[in-house]
Amino acid sequence: MTDADPTMKRNLSAKPPTIHDVARLAEVSIGTASKALNASGRLSDETRERVKRVAAEIGYRANDLAHSLRRANSRTIGIISNDSFGRFTFPIVEALEERLADEGIAVFMCNATDDPERERQHLDQLLGKRIDGLVVTARRADKRPTIGISAAGLPVIYVFSQADDPDALSLLPDDEGGALLAVEHLAALGRKRIAHITGPEHFEAVRLRRRGYEKGLAAAGLAPNPSLYRAGVWSEAWGREAVADLFGNAGEKPDAIFCGNDQIARGASDALRERGVAVPEDVAIVGFDNWDVMALAARPPLTSVDMNLKELGREAGESLLEMIAGKRLSGVRRRPCSLTVRESSVGHKDE
Amino acid sequence: MTDADPTMKRNLSAKPPTIHDVARLAEVSIGTASKALNASGRLSDETRERVKRVAAEIGYRANDLAHSLRRANSRTIGIISNDSFGRFTFPIVEALEERLADEGIAVFMCNATDDPERERQHLDQLLGKRIDGLVVTARRADKRPTIGISAAGLPVIYVFSQADDPDALSLLPDDEGGALLAVEHLAALGRKRIAHITGPEHFEAVRLRRRGYEKGLAAAGLAPNPSLYRAGVWSEAWGREAVADLFGNAGEKPDAIFCGNDQIARGASDALRERGVAVPEDVAIVGFDNWDVMALAARPPLTSVDMNLKELGREAGESLLEMIAGKRLSGVRRRPCSLTVRESSVGHKDE
Repeated sequence: MTDADPTMKRNLSAKPPTIHDVARLAEVSIGTASKALNASGRLSDETRERVKRVAAEIGYRANDLAHSLRRANSRTIGIISNDSFGRFTFPIVEALEERLADEGIAVFMCNATDDPERERQHLDQLLGKRIDGLVVTARRADKRPTIGISAAGLPVIYVFSQADDPDALSLLPDDEGGALLAVEHLAALGRKRIAHITGPEHFEAVRLRRRGYEKGLAAAGLAPNPSLYRAGVWSEAWGREAVADLFGNAGEKPDAIFCGNDQIARGASDALRERGVAVPEDVAIVGFDNWDVMALAARPPLTSVDMNLKELGREAGESLLEMIAGKRLSGVRRRPCSLTVRESSVGHKDE
Repeated sequence: MTDADPTMKRNLSAKPPTIHDVARLAEVSIGTASKALNASGRLSDETRERVKRVAAEIGYRANDLAHSLRRANSRTIGIISNDSFGRFTFPIVEALEERLADEGIAVFMCNATDDPERERQHLDQLLGKRIDGLVVTARRADKRPTIGISAAGLPVIYVFSQADDPDALSLLPDDEGGALLAVEHLAALGRKRIAHITGPEHFEAVRLRRRGYEKGLAAAGLAPNPSLYRAGVWSEAWGREAVADLFGNAGEKPDAIFCGNDQIARGASDALRERGVAVPEDVAIVGFDNWDVMALAARPPLTSVDMNLKELGREAGESLLEMIAGKRLSGVRRRPCSLTVRESSVGHKDE
């Protein structure tokens, strides 16, 4: 490590300097840098002065959070994921890790794979390492038992996962609001017979998205038609099957389909094309997840609801820092989704 | 925690008990359990006896590795991933974390997102936490600069990532061998004109898979036809485009296509179906990655080369444990791929 590296200062100029930058440039630990700047603890005058000089040079400004983070003992937190680190979990974990790294806090990752015994092992291990906080995440946004923490007062956040304890803090995407966005978009395009093909109803997300769909219909003055609602599984094959069923029988044909995820949307879109039904001219399609692999490969590319998982992860990091600094946070917080509009709803742009 | 929990013993019977199990059941730390069993360090007789009794009860057998792991100081290791934790990295990291958790070693995850400054920050932080070992991984299996470690002697492993230092240990899938498997399979099915549609040639994996493809042709006594080789990008759209090109011109038409990944294979398969070319009757297809989302959703489902990433991760964990225990390992090790056979090469099973 050398402070003569010109790339360092250049990178520092890109965003506000952190306590981590001060520590690195002054060649001290983060704890020492914090002590020096907070005029606490025993330090040599030379060290204290060097830290202060570096902080002044790079324009570091201690904030309340940084002061309060003196409460962080080990400067580590743990993440326990159930159901493996998958497509939904990793943007969250990545953004969270990035936010905490800025404060010099490192992240232990533990995969409990839905095995309660394994989860307890991990928890014991993390508590043994005296983590300053814990994040619990999962693939499914359904309720789970509150994690048994023997160390009272350890900050815990559930992200993309919901504790059954009302005193816990759970951060989730607003599934209902996301579905409402999708239906508002389709209604604004003049669609009148909007179907909803979705996943298994034992997912809370499926029930919430359905509620958003129904609210969207009501807001647009459209009467719901129960035959246009189909719950199944999260697959392309189900999307194809549901389309075959909706278009193969004598009932009312939809002029738009809001799908519970992008895989269903892609299957529906393929099935429509193969029946000679034009997307979006005859039937507009909106998916959910904004999973680029699916959304961009579909023909035409899919308009899709984005759960903004990176922002959810960043907010989880921010909230955990606040809790480590002594703030009490609780309750279920649902964060807004957004809509990424592509050709499957508004028409071909290039072809 | 209670040792009266009947599920615990049941779970323990499933695989050999670890030092972690002993520590948990004896209600001591792993360090204490290790000291008690190795007759080293200061401990009360009562504790030493309790640990030994628990170890005997559950049939724990210390092995050389467990003994040597006394060298592990912090019982933590770090993983630095470049290019974010994605589809390829996660199975590796998961399996590695699982293996190390069995030895009571926790994993710090750090995402460097291809930013050298960020990587150095993470490294400083990890060294500050006195990690016992480091794993470097990436999305691309290309060579990268050896990581600058100031703490001499820290065990480092590159997984799905290759250091430019011959003394480093790099674990990679055998791309060439995987491609060979694919072509042998197609040749054994009687295919004579095997095309290869693949990704960008600046990927070492693309060059190695091509070499395996050419070796496979030679082994089957098939003459290579340069017009049947197409390098492009890793997308479905490229798979469709390459098929349009191969079948739209006057040249020799392939009766099989080995694709550089499953996205290309899926695009190729869609384009063939839409041209009225039957898969696999007219053209058999094999993909690479065995990515279930793609392979199972394709019609018909894709035969694909599997890089066995979980096994790669497990082996990385095993090797890192050996290195922490004092063993020196180096060189580039390539681990075998396997072939998952589905309908895209051998024909419809159900439909």
